[in-house]
Amino acid sequence: MNHSPTQSILALSVGELLERLGSSAPAPGGGAAAALAGALGAALVQMTANLTLGRPRFAQVEAQAASIAERAGQLRARLASLGDADAAAYAEVAAAYGRPRADDAQKAARAAAIQTALGGAARVPIETAQVCAAVLHLAEEAAPLLNPSVISDVIVGAQLAAAGLEAAAINVEINLASLTDADLAASLAAELAAAQAGAAERRQRIVEVGRSRFPGR
Amino acid sequence: MNHSPTQSILALSVGELLERLGSSAPAPGGGAAAALAGALGAALVQMTANLTLGRPRFAQVEAQAASIAERAGQLRARLASLGDADAAAYAEVAAAYGRPRADDAQKAARAAAIQTALGGAARVPIETAQVCAAVLHLAEEAAPLLNPSVISDVIVGAQLAAAGLEAAAINVEINLASLTDADLAASLAAELAAAQAGAAERRQRIVEVGRSRFPGR
Repeated sequence: MNHSPTQSILALSVGELLERLGSSAPAPGGGAAAALAGALGAALVQMTANLTLGRPRFAQVEAQAASIAERAGQLRARLASLGDADAAAYAEVAAAYGRPRADDAQKAARAAAIQTALGGAARVPIETAQVCAAVLHLAEEAAPLLNPSVISDVIVGAQLAAAGLEAAAINVEINLASLTDADLAASLAAELAAAQAGAAERRQRIVEVGRSRFPGR
Repeated sequence: MNHSPTQSILALSVGELLERLGSSAPAPGGGAAAALAGALGAALVQMTANLTLGRPRFAQVEAQAASIAERAGQLRARLASLGDADAAAYAEVAAAYGRPRADDAQKAARAAAIQTALGGAARVPIETAQVCAAVLHLAEEAAPLLNPSVISDVIVGAQLAAAGLEAAAINVEINLASLTDADLAASLAAELAAAQAGAAERRQRIVEVGRSRFPGR
């Protein structure tokens, strides 16, 4: 299908993004917001690593901080692009619902196109959930290591990544509720469950480890 | 104190915001990210209300949807400005830490300035937590009423507002850990606890109510 190219949400100003999100335009919506929450989380882990690097008192963890900074930057970029991918997938769904349904053949073709588009649209939040889960793993690696003066930013990063994961899961679920292919729905649900496994406990551990390192404690 | 005016984060592109957040620049940081997560959440509640308004099949809830859209827009604007306020408050703290400490008089003046700045800096995330809590109240009002085709966006909005609240709480806590005025710390902690009260249960109720209204169920 051909859609007119839409502007990347990365090129919008933050003010414009909030304005468009709040408007009755169908995209960007909850899928893009979930990916952006995860991207904010990854950026905070990256920042804490960058505020650890090159400081003599953290020389012992220099190599680990460099590795965390690099991987956080990659996850951040991936989540940012998933925000755009969600809008594109949503446009496919909307286009399928907009197909003609004047006779039975058209109705059948439209129904099939809707199912294909919904299956594709469910893939974007599944990947968002997977990358948010990877941010949580990275934050768990970062919490005991990085500069304690800014360790609250690792905790906040983990909280935002966990919210991005849970939000992506809701977006998968609402798509699956309309999918008629039970096998595809079950396989997508299993992929989602794998991304969610252990995330809440990991988030809690990061909060506890990070908090125990607050300055003044 | 005079600080050179800093650019509003609302004027940055989303891509620039993520880049600055991930960099070693101390601001924007976790406080701005928490407020932005809440603003994304408020925008999604506003969008769902706007996708309910003016549709004949939702005529019965038209007045309520209009009221939700308006209040969500106000909370969104307040959270967006708190993102900037956090960067300004952080600059005060950094300036206080940067004061001279050549003799005892300077040391005492610097310590007092740090305490004043920390007390002020703790106020921004407390207000962020309060406004995120207000977004959760609004999402609870919205979940049983608004257009079920896009009700997942109310759930995602609640998840992001809850994450913004929890993230703001961590930012308050790390500031309180360095405050020496025990009375001020206790009073700020009590304000924070009031904003947090019932939020997790409210978030869970919104997920359940919204999910029960998914199309296809």
